Amino acid sequence: MRGVSIVGIGQTPVGEHWDLSVRHMAHGAISAAMHDAGVERADALFVGNMLSGSLLDQEHLAALIADFSGLRGVEAAKVEAACASGAAALRVGCMAVSSGMHDIVIVAGVEKMTDTPSGSTTAGLATAADAEYEAAQGITFVGLNALLMQRYLYEYAAPVDAFAGFSINAHRNGANNPNAMFRRPIGLKEYVNAPMIASPINMMDSSPVCDGAAAVVLVPTEQASDFTVGHHRGAVQILASASVTDTLAVHDRRDVLFLEAAYLSSQKAYLQSGVTPDDIDFFELHDAFTIMSALSLEATGFARRGEGWRMAVDEEIGIGGRLPISTMGGLKSRGHPVGATGVYQIVETVQQLTGEAGKNQVTHARIGMAQNIGGSGATIVSHILGV
Amino acid sequence: MRGVSIVGIGQTPVGEHWDLSVRHMAHGAISAAMHDAGVERADALFVGNMLSGSLLDQEHLAALIADFSGLRGVEAAKVEAACASGAAALRVGCMAVSSGMHDIVIVAGVEKMTDTPSGSTTAGLATAADAEYEAAQGITFVGLNALLMQRYLYEYAAPVDAFAGFSINAHRNGANNPNAMFRRPIGLKEYVNAPMIASPINMMDSSPVCDGAAAVVLVPTEQASDFTVGHHRGAVQILASASVTDTLAVHDRRDVLFLEAAYLSSQKAYLQSGVTPDDIDFFELHDAFTIMSALSLEATGFARRGEGWRMAVDEEIGIGGRLPISTMGGLKSRGHPVGATGVYQIVETVQQLTGEAGKNQVTHARIGMAQNIGGSGATIVSHILGV
Repeated sequence: MRGVSIVGIGQTPVGEHWDLSVRHMAHGAISAAMHDAGVERADALFVGNMLSGSLLDQEHLAALIADFSGLRGVEAAKVEAACASGAAALRVGCMAVSSGMHDIVIVAGVEKMTDTPSGSTTAGLATAADAEYEAAQGITFVGLNALLMQRYLYEYAAPVDAFAGFSINAHRNGANNPNAMFRRPIGLKEYVNAPMIASPINMMDSSPVCDGAAAVVLVPTEQASDFTVGHHRGAVQILASASVTDTLAVHDRRDVLFLEAAYLSSQKAYLQSGVTPDDIDFFELHDAFTIMSALSLEATGFARRGEGWRMAVDEEIGIGGRLPISTMGGLKSRGHPVGATGVYQIVETVQQLTGEAGKNQVTHARIGMAQNIGGSGATIVSHILGV
Repeated sequence: MRGVSIVGIGQTPVGEHWDLSVRHMAHGAISAAMHDAGVERADALFVGNMLSGSLLDQEHLAALIADFSGLRGVEAAKVEAACASGAAALRVGCMAVSSGMHDIVIVAGVEKMTDTPSGSTTAGLATAADAEYEAAQGITFVGLNALLMQRYLYEYAAPVDAFAGFSINAHRNGANNPNAMFRRPIGLKEYVNAPMIASPINMMDSSPVCDGAAAVVLVPTEQASDFTVGHHRGAVQILASASVTDTLAVHDRRDVLFLEAAYLSSQKAYLQSGVTPDDIDFFELHDAFTIMSALSLEATGFARRGEGWRMAVDEEIGIGGRLPISTMGGLKSRGHPVGATGVYQIVETVQQLTGEAGKNQVTHARIGMAQNIGGSGATIVSHILGV
């Protein structure tokens, strides 16, 4: 099995891009990544996207984006796993390179959720849940997460502002990221006064609806030096890559407060890479809602059950803390263009590992982890990257 | 790179399954394939599907199907490339096995197009075309194919019933396939009298809207004998697998009557396998519309340009002919549940290669080719299988 390295990254700022179609955003990220890698061609393009069929009346998205990005002829396919589509596409890209089928593979994540021609974004997001047993009963995706948060607060007798620190940390970091959607720091006051969306989830617990695209260029590790000669960027190796599923419907989980797929995918990733949680210098987790941050930290081995929220209270998650998370703003502040998020996480992980994270740089960052979650935990993909 | 073999196949009959949800159909095909292979577990599931977001309000489909099929925990992702989604998913399954990341991989294709809770099937199918430059102008998918057929008849001065033979052949073969949607043979009279859909495409030129699911079990060729000991099925090897893209919008093609992606993907497949068109014993082509049969035969090396239709007139495409095509009824008669079709083609190719094609058995079939087309030619995936 060939190792896989990342030799180029690209991203568009996350925001409400009413002036850009999905193809324009994807092209922007792909061409930036190709320029960054110094490549003018590729063998394949895998696109992580969730909602183009529901909201844009556009399937066959990968071939469309390949053509629009000057890659007509390459192999192309869209990979979908709800909000984990980006990392699921990266998995496929890794397989394509690792198998020897392709040498230069581009993985892009793209999502357009605002100013769409068709459908409701709330209904679109509910397609990540079980259509027949959850969405058909009228529950929205934020509603499902509200049930989880409510249960967490009850089971662990946590204070109602237990999760404030996740949001405050994300906004503090996002303020320094030029590609983040929200660049204004917030404090406890803003958190506590935020409008309620689905109790107990308030506006500051929730990531925004937005548009964005990110891309990476993958090559075999054995060839990576060919792409980095005379080039500022050192190659980043993908040390581990693992995807695990769980039941979509929350009511079918063995334990609704334990992300079993996060536990299993992170354990696989640790085994693949020989890395332990103590070796991880920073963690790009999936803070679509603050409750997900706590559950992710607990299942991935960074906190004991019921104590994930204390890492925020104790300020362990800041840039200089024990385990920096959401270092470029996370889903909360950088934004969560759903099918693109997994690739944004990887792009930001590469930025940290190559010393390009600006004011948010984690010092001596050598090993970073990214975890992308689909639905309320039914698809969880963990990647460990290193230099 | 490890070779990949198919050790199990499964399918549901194609039809209007008003009593079955997408998960039930997928589970039926997957459990049949697993039973056929004699496996009780798998490492990963890749699902080819196009329309679950648009028509069923269900994304995150692969994790849902994995759980419902008793595979909770496996890696799972949906792969989408319009009507080529099935073969695109097979490509990913091949990469997963070939790379060494997984040993037992299930690839399923599933589509539910009738009795859906949401959206219009005609609008859904139009998402295979360019939403902004084709569909937004009001053209349907059958309309695009009608333009191609009209142009073909004009350029090559072919008679208006030039394509009848493709439809007659498909229905003749489908009559013997218990999984086919239409099992009544037709003659020239039925073809000529068929209602017009989008001139010159009539009802008999066009594949039906329908539901279905098919699945295969992949393992490394080096381990295939472990799965076939004491078992009726000999393993079928995937000798070649190639996917190539072209522009989505027909008006952007260099030559609208030449399927460049079919040419390039078949040439890659010939190169990979060392097989020539003369070695191919039968060809499961993508007869979504009869015009596509002619264009596919020409671009893949079986007929000269403008002469694909003559293969039907000259009866070269029947079971005993020079190049049997659509041997189990093809998209026209077996049916075309769009994202499932590519996997049905593979299942039928395996049936032919293992002597299980019943009355439609091609004698001494050793090498078969399957070609799955997305949109009007923007994604074309060619597979060559052999025993």
